Amino acid sequence: MQLITYQDSGRERAARVGVLLESKVIDVAALARHENSTLPHTMLGLIDAGPSALDRLRQLIETHRLGWPVGTATWRDNVRLLAPIPRPRKNIFGIGLNYVDHVAESSRSLDTAKDMPAKPVVFSKPPTSVIGPGDAIEHNAAITVQLDWEVELGVVIGRTAKRIREADAMDYVFGYTVINDVSARDNRRAGQWIFSKGQDTYCPMGPCIVTADEIPDPHNLALSLKKNGRSMQVANTSQMYFRIPVLIADIASAITLEPGDIIATGTPSGVGAGRTPPEWMVPGDVIEAHVEGIGTLRNPVIAA
Amino acid sequence: MQLITYQDSGRERAARVGVLLESKVIDVAALARHENSTLPHTMLGLIDAGPSALDRLRQLIETHRLGWPVGTATWRDNVRLLAPIPRPRKNIFGIGLNYVDHVAESSRSLDTAKDMPAKPVVFSKPPTSVIGPGDAIEHNAAITVQLDWEVELGVVIGRTAKRIREADAMDYVFGYTVINDVSARDNRRAGQWIFSKGQDTYCPMGPCIVTADEIPDPHNLALSLKKNGRSMQVANTSQMYFRIPVLIADIASAITLEPGDIIATGTPSGVGAGRTPPEWMVPGDVIEAHVEGIGTLRNPVIAA
Repeated sequence: MQLITYQDSGRERAARVGVLLESKVIDVAALARHENSTLPHTMLGLIDAGPSALDRLRQLIETHRLGWPVGTATWRDNVRLLAPIPRPRKNIFGIGLNYVDHVAESSRSLDTAKDMPAKPVVFSKPPTSVIGPGDAIEHNAAITVQLDWEVELGVVIGRTAKRIREADAMDYVFGYTVINDVSARDNRRAGQWIFSKGQDTYCPMGPCIVTADEIPDPHNLALSLKKNGRSMQVANTSQMYFRIPVLIADIASAITLEPGDIIATGTPSGVGAGRTPPEWMVPGDVIEAHVEGIGTLRNPVIAA
Repeated sequence: MQLITYQDSGRERAARVGVLLESKVIDVAALARHENSTLPHTMLGLIDAGPSALDRLRQLIETHRLGWPVGTATWRDNVRLLAPIPRPRKNIFGIGLNYVDHVAESSRSLDTAKDMPAKPVVFSKPPTSVIGPGDAIEHNAAITVQLDWEVELGVVIGRTAKRIREADAMDYVFGYTVINDVSARDNRRAGQWIFSKGQDTYCPMGPCIVTADEIPDPHNLALSLKKNGRSMQVANTSQMYFRIPVLIADIASAITLEPGDIIATGTPSGVGAGRTPPEWMVPGDVIEAHVEGIGTLRNPVIAA
């Protein structure tokens, strides 16, 4: 399923979780209510409710597919998509230097090492950095002139994970989304990345979460990024150095992962810092980050 | 006021916000209820409620000081203290290399620079790293042999701050607490600190939050740390390099600070990595971190 968080512009304003089905959006809680049942009305609620809730939702969708009950479906064009998880429970975990060719370009243009890291390079973005599809990435000229893009596959955790085996790690995945790991290269602090990657609006996320069952091989997805229609990054998640189960088991070896936590799995080459000459995002730009099977996350850049 | 989050072992188990008055704990919500009024029952609720709620609480305390209504007060010995904010809304912001003599010892023993940083070195600890007074710091021998201590003054934010002036920054402070910024020196990842400082149990916090009105000069507080009764760190917050208003205004220049957010303002010299020979925490150790006017935060170290 393609799960979204949305606001129905015609009716109530509160954000709700929905299922995206071609040109329609199905209101998860409303559909359950129609059957005298209940399902959560937020994405975090739905993730917390576990696999049985998701199965029940799938059945409801199947039952009503040929005719949606009144008040349960609306046109996609009538809703505003938000980030699938507008307010994560903790920081987003980012993974630096996880594509071989990006490590090479980074070592040439930034201050990172030439060799592949021995362990995943974990960093964090605060929950306040998250924005949704169409929301603006803020360019604050007072503090950065090196605002850069990074398309990434985002892994959404489905249940609490602490000290788990790599072999079991994929059982903890709820689904996948697209993340643009926006980075102000000139805002690193003694090498630390949270200030350069954690500013408000620096974590565009969406357009949806695709549940894990519909992405049998997350290590074989095309991912790409365009700036103003021009191709900047073109790669495949098969080029990831530390794969998803390694990343989950590694973080969970020391830090409790919780339902709805997000791991941004790293970016391939083609970032602005790695180009000759370097190229940055400026107000007026439009960035489109795409991952195969999930969709396109489009965000304009504006002056802060 | 000294505000705590506690569990009353004799009665309900839910965590509640209380006022510590010598040997007694006053239940904030219960005291308000006695006056047919309402006040929040959690620390985050109380912070969100703003200065007027705090004023109302002060009046209630003053009114009943000579005789607590039934069900509003209990002995301190009968309660278990938790971290004042057991689950922060986002990552805790840490500040690295913010005491001159610690920068010197770090440059000798770790891989940090000899010169003072040009801007605050911001890093983060996830909310899952927080533990309270008396809770155990977990030593996981499978992943670290360099577990270190760092006593720090913690600043608790009182209201939303974004792009504020340094001159106004102290208006955004709710109060102060003690933090032990536990750090596995051998768990840094390509220089990034979240894995080395963000593991579960690596953010002991407490024993209380002292409201800002009772600490007129947070830049003149003795702070110290003992391991098994032996003095390890002895310093004063006057030695901070970037002072509190600078730190708040700097982070808020790019990242929205929210009520209940916490900034750990850095540690002075005397950490284990800086000693000759280096010294680390091991199971069986007891660590006491103290800040003048706030109290002592005591945590044992156990094998994970």
